[in-house]
Amino acid sequence: MTEGIDAAARKYKRPETEIVTVSPEYGPAAIDNFYDEALSSIGVLEEVKKGLAEGFDGFVIACFSDPGLQASREISKVPVVGIAEAGMLFACTVAYRFSIISMPKRSLASTHELLKRYGLKSRCASVRMIDVPVLEMERGLAEMKKDLLEEARKAVKEDDAEAILLGCAGLAGLDKEFENELGVPVIDGVVAAVKLLEALHGYGLKTSKALTYLPPEKKPITGFSKILREWKGTRSVE
Amino acid sequence: MTEGIDAAARKYKRPETEIVTVSPEYGPAAIDNFYDEALSSIGVLEEVKKGLAEGFDGFVIACFSDPGLQASREISKVPVVGIAEAGMLFACTVAYRFSIISMPKRSLASTHELLKRYGLKSRCASVRMIDVPVLEMERGLAEMKKDLLEEARKAVKEDDAEAILLGCAGLAGLDKEFENELGVPVIDGVVAAVKLLEALHGYGLKTSKALTYLPPEKKPITGFSKILREWKGTRSVE
Amino acid sequence: MTEGIDAAARKYKRPETEIVTVSPEYGPAAIDNFYDEALSSIGVLEEVKKGLAEGFDGFVIACFSDPGLQASREISKVPVVGIAEAGMLFACTVAYRFSIISMPKRSLASTHELLKRYGLKSRCASVRMIDVPVLEMERGLAEMKKDLLEEARKAVKEDDAEAILLGCAGLAGLDKEFENELGVPVIDGVVAAVKLLEALHGYGLKTSKALTYLPPEKKPITGFSKILREWKGTRSVE
Amino acid sequence: MTEGIDAAARKYKRPETEIVTVSPEYGPAAIDNFYDEALSSIGVLEEVKKGLAEGFDGFVIACFSDPGLQASREISKVPVVGIAEAGMLFACTVAYRFSIISMPKRSLASTHELLKRYGLKSRCASVRMIDVPVLEMERGLAEMKKDLLEEARKAVKEDDAEAILLGCAGLAGLDKEFENELGVPVIDGVVAAVKLLEALHGYGLKTSKALTYLPPEKKPITGFSKILREWKGTRSVE
Amino acid sequence: MTEGIDAAARKYKRPETEIVTVSPEYGPAAIDNFYDEALSSIGVLEEVKKGLAEGFDGFVIACFSDPGLQASREISKVPVVGIAEAGMLFACTVAYRFSIISMPKRSLASTHELLKRYGLKSRCASVRMIDVPVLEMERGLAEMKKDLLEEARKAVKEDDAEAILLGCAGLAGLDKEFENELGVPVIDGVVAAVKLLEALHGYGLKTSKALTYLPPEKKPITGFSKILREWKGTRSVE
Amino acid sequence: MTEGIDAAARKYKRPETEIVTVSPEYGPAAIDNFYDEALSSIGVLEEVKKGLAEGFDGFVIACFSDPGLQASREISKVPVVGIAEAGMLFACTVAYRFSIISMPKRSLASTHELLKRYGLKSRCASVRMIDVPVLEMERGLAEMKKDLLEEARKAVKEDDAEAILLGCAGLAGLDKEFENELGVPVIDGVVAAVKLLEALHGYGLKTSKALTYLPPEKKPITGFSKILREWKGTRSVE
Repeated sequence: MTEGIDAAARKYKRPETEIVTVSPEYGPAAIDNFYDEALSSIGVLEEVKKGLAEGFDGFVIACFSDPGLQASREISKVPVVGIAEAGMLFACTVAYRFSIISMPKRSLASTHELLKRYGLKSRCASVRMIDVPVLEMERGLAEMKKDLLEEARKAVKEDDAEAILLGCAGLAGLDKEFENELGVPVIDGVVAAVKLLEALHGYGLKTSKALTYLPPEKKPITGFSKILREWKGTRSVE
Repeated sequence: MTEGIDAAARKYKRPETEIVTVSPEYGPAAIDNFYDEALSSIGVLEEVKKGLAEGFDGFVIACFSDPGLQASREISKVPVVGIAEAGMLFACTVAYRFSIISMPKRSLASTHELLKRYGLKSRCASVRMIDVPVLEMERGLAEMKKDLLEEARKAVKEDDAEAILLGCAGLAGLDKEFENELGVPVIDGVVAAVKLLEALHGYGLKTSKALTYLPPEKKPITGFSKILREWKGTRSVE
Repeated sequence: MTEGIDAAARKYKRPETEIVTVSPEYGPAAIDNFYDEALSSIGVLEEVKKGLAEGFDGFVIACFSDPGLQASREISKVPVVGIAEAGMLFACTVAYRFSIISMPKRSLASTHELLKRYGLKSRCASVRMIDVPVLEMERGLAEMKKDLLEEARKAVKEDDAEAILLGCAGLAGLDKEFENELGVPVIDGVVAAVKLLEALHGYGLKTSKALTYLPPEKKPITGFSKILREWKGTRSVE
Repeated sequence: MTEGIDAAARKYKRPETEIVTVSPEYGPAAIDNFYDEALSSIGVLEEVKKGLAEGFDGFVIACFSDPGLQASREISKVPVVGIAEAGMLFACTVAYRFSIISMPKRSLASTHELLKRYGLKSRCASVRMIDVPVLEMERGLAEMKKDLLEEARKAVKEDDAEAILLGCAGLAGLDKEFENELGVPVIDGVVAAVKLLEALHGYGLKTSKALTYLPPEKKPITGFSKILREWKGTRSVE
Repeated sequence: MTEGIDAAARKYKRPETEIVTVSPEYGPAAIDNFYDEALSSIGVLEEVKKGLAEGFDGFVIACFSDPGLQASREISKVPVVGIAEAGMLFACTVAYRFSIISMPKRSLASTHELLKRYGLKSRCASVRMIDVPVLEMERGLAEMKKDLLEEARKAVKEDDAEAILLGCAGLAGLDKEFENELGVPVIDGVVAAVKLLEALHGYGLKTSKALTYLPPEKKPITGFSKILREWKGTRSVE
Repeated sequence: MTEGIDAAARKYKRPETEIVTVSPEYGPAAIDNFYDEALSSIGVLEEVKKGLAEGFDGFVIACFSDPGLQASREISKVPVVGIAEAGMLFACTVAYRFSIISMPKRSLASTHELLKRYGLKSRCASVRMIDVPVLEMERGLAEMKKDLLEEARKAVKEDDAEAILLGCAGLAGLDKEFENELGVPVIDGVVAAVKLLEALHGYGLKTSKALTYLPPEKKPITGFSKILREWKGTRSVE
């Protein structure tokens, strides 16, 4: 899956953009539910901290539940973008309403929570899921693609969707293939996030440190890797 | 803080209810922000798993950001209740609109996200914060109480709040003292959660395993304690 | 119907809880519409006043339109809970989204108004009705149960409901039978209200007298029973 | 108060419109709260039934809590209009956002419930109340008018209200006087309702009998006047 | 189409009301989309200016996208009413929820935008469209009527609509015919707007000049007819 | 003003991006209200048509009311972006809530309509206006900047805004100066739109032609320039 994400990102990046795609050192092999999402946030935060130490200009969180997005913004001055967020924002600029196709069905709640958080419920025509766990995708990819296309077609025909957003990083790279089949814009959140990050960086925008995304206060933390524990923030509460 | 929570819970529990208050083995010393919340979710999930192994009848997550609540429901058949959620639901039954008083100010976003998630924005008159990190509470408790009471008074007078919800587990035990000062119901989410859990248990309600809260799918997990990695769920994706 | 309500309440109450189930002295034989609801509010208010004189610790209004709930809170310091409200709140703690099954179809509007009032529209997957007047239930109970179960199954399968709320006090007692059939939590608002009231009472919470639920101002009232006319409130406008 | 309402209605009615203003035979002397509203609904319904027997072409419910409005629509084929509803709808056609000024302060909740019910929250800039019970209005009318004008001025200046809606039938007749003072449209719901009813009648629109406003089902009713009990509806449940 | 609009308006107007129906001198022959709407606004504004010079008492904009409505209110002190707005407001007074039937399907977005703007999404059961451009209506009117009735029937049966709003001025005059077929109120926005305007005029209400609808500031305008360029407003920014 | 917009756009564009900044041939000298917006849409549409003929890859509409945005998307396959829309979307990625500062005060309604349309009301902390017409900006620029900064400071301090969005194209170029003063991200919608357009183009996204943004149907259009009248669309209704 990491390879597919990397390939999608590289395909559309600007020549001068350097992309480093990493899979967190620990965490679940895929993210289907809130439990996976909670565990994966830790790995995401660790990678963001490593990346900050290495001087990266921005971060894409390449999972459609945007795990750890708000926490990452707290520890980072450079922009952090989630693929669900970026994909939804891009969809709004080319379509009146968009639909999301994804899997597995149980993650409907997670996607609805993001739509509420980002305020975009009225822009979303439907969320359509096939009931396959993320890790099962690779087995029988051909059939899964057929089923996803079928849901996308229903979204366009029955729900009046005018664009399709791929609701899983594991679907990265299917955008143009699906677009040819469907005749409506198909958006890969991974690409949207890379392009959005280039845009934010090009403008020189930084994460606001006014209130919500202030650096975490210094405090004792038990467990976790040293990198997560030793916060070198700029905020002191003394 | 754990002692205060324990005392509040014991004060109002039914005689036959057995309460075990634990502080997760690892995690931040307090929860002020999304970063702390992400880290603390891990400890919460581990304690829920331990508790399930020991046969507990339900769980209260005693932090006002309800960390790990949805993930905990996935791994648990017995009810799991958050103190923000329980406090808000109780407030709705005794007041037309309630206000939340808490700290630190940066956690406003976290509280607003919960109000959106639970659908109760229209029932909340205001969220008023004093700008003190949770860990600083104990230094100068007297002054902090004065400042919180001042915000609560403004909530009643200026925002038309009809009940006050204490928006931090660290405030557990202040409910009746504040109620006497303010003349409106003051709700401690810790107590509300304990009473709600007793009620759900008394009715025999269990977490739905229909869709969102299905057990997590089995999959390789790297890192984390053995207890978090070895999920003994009943769901198999094969 | 009153017997069914009484039995459901007794089945789950705490041993020390004393339950007195009354049917108001006047009012319609059942509540299918806004007209019935208006008339029934009067009987509800009279019973609450009688109960207050007798020193009850709280009140459950056992009709799914929660008739007279807000007015009852004005005349009562002890908590008053409606079965729609209590059932919805409980459903939110065990399911991401719930559906309501009820009758007759014309009362859809009443249920939607309550969802708006309580702020829980986004938590409700659907309201599904069979088109039978409440009084007709007893004729052909078996068939009605079959039809309700059919709607509940559709709610789970087609609307992604994760719990079912029985939307009529006349359905009290069917919860566990339906739960066994459906495999998802089924909530009887009557039981939820009793358990919620025990919880509120156990915590010592009282209805806020800050603004909305202040005692009614003293004023001449024409007609109605003496008990409704002679308000012995504590508020004087002089 | 009934005289003031009658005078306002007559001032703006069409020449051919015949207006009969009645005060229900029983009910509270004024409506400040949900308790008063519940009691007053009964009198309203009785008057609507009497009016239907006399062949009236439509009904205005002249209290800003629109008591019994939905129930009245169930028993009437000819249009029934509430003064809150009519006033709000008219305000939307002459202003981007309007404010409501009224009394007493405790009835804020009632007004907010109506705004939710009618869907017009985003069109309402503010609800501003002076804390005087409706019955106290006549004592010190001059001062009350000064205080209401002061709130209306704040609504325009601080809340960006572009029209003022008088939020109490007891204020009927103050519209033009206030309009001259404020320089923005001031709407009396009583007049708005009369004019709206003339318009609906002129178009020949009747209350829909498709679902929500079907006639109440026949059923035994205990208590209440014979007129309320003996429903001569057209719907039979057999 | 102008004739049909004129006939519908005349059929229900008060005897003393004088109606002048005009088709703007320039603009598209029909309005199916946002492009047509933008062009048509110009013609609407010119006609409103002409009408103001001639001393008309109010204006109806007879296209269901309410083109130029807000701009027209800026240049007019007398009321300006749109047929979508008036039709929706009237529907709310005779039905709990209404559906809109119209064409072509692509204009769904325009109708949803209006529902958002007027705040009435929760009152609208559905918007059902047949996919025929407005100009094609006259070809095969019989078939189009059949198709519209079919959608209206589905709205009542499947979407629980309790009234039908005709969503296009080109459908003016079909209200009573459809009402007979459907058995629920059918509202022609043209008639609703005329009756609403008579009502506003009868009350003497004028467009608020407090903020949003202030006259446009004087400024150089290039192009357009002299009538649009030479604004004789009363507001000077000097 | 056109020069300022052009300079802001050039300052942040990618080297290979070619920017052509045009002021429509006709229309008002500035846009303060809905009337100006209606007139300016025509000029915008004409420029988009000219640009399409010349083969441009995308369009920015550089006025904060996003005039003609939806109509432009109908006539264009290449992306069209408004500066309000782009600025709001960018603000959401660097701040939990943002405020908009702009002028004149009467255009508050226009900005609120856009927030409703884009679904971002909950992400907007406040809209703060100084009451100066757009054309007056250049007279006394220093004082206007002082006043705008004052409002921005209040937005951060009193409304908890975490980023500031400049709500008028006439403010283009003030972003970094204000950012230095305020210490929070300040976003110029002109730059945001240019960067967003580069991103959309880099990804190869095109406006959806599925429903809402289909080319306008061919039909007779009276008046307007030949360029607006002669639509060379690909859709034929025959």
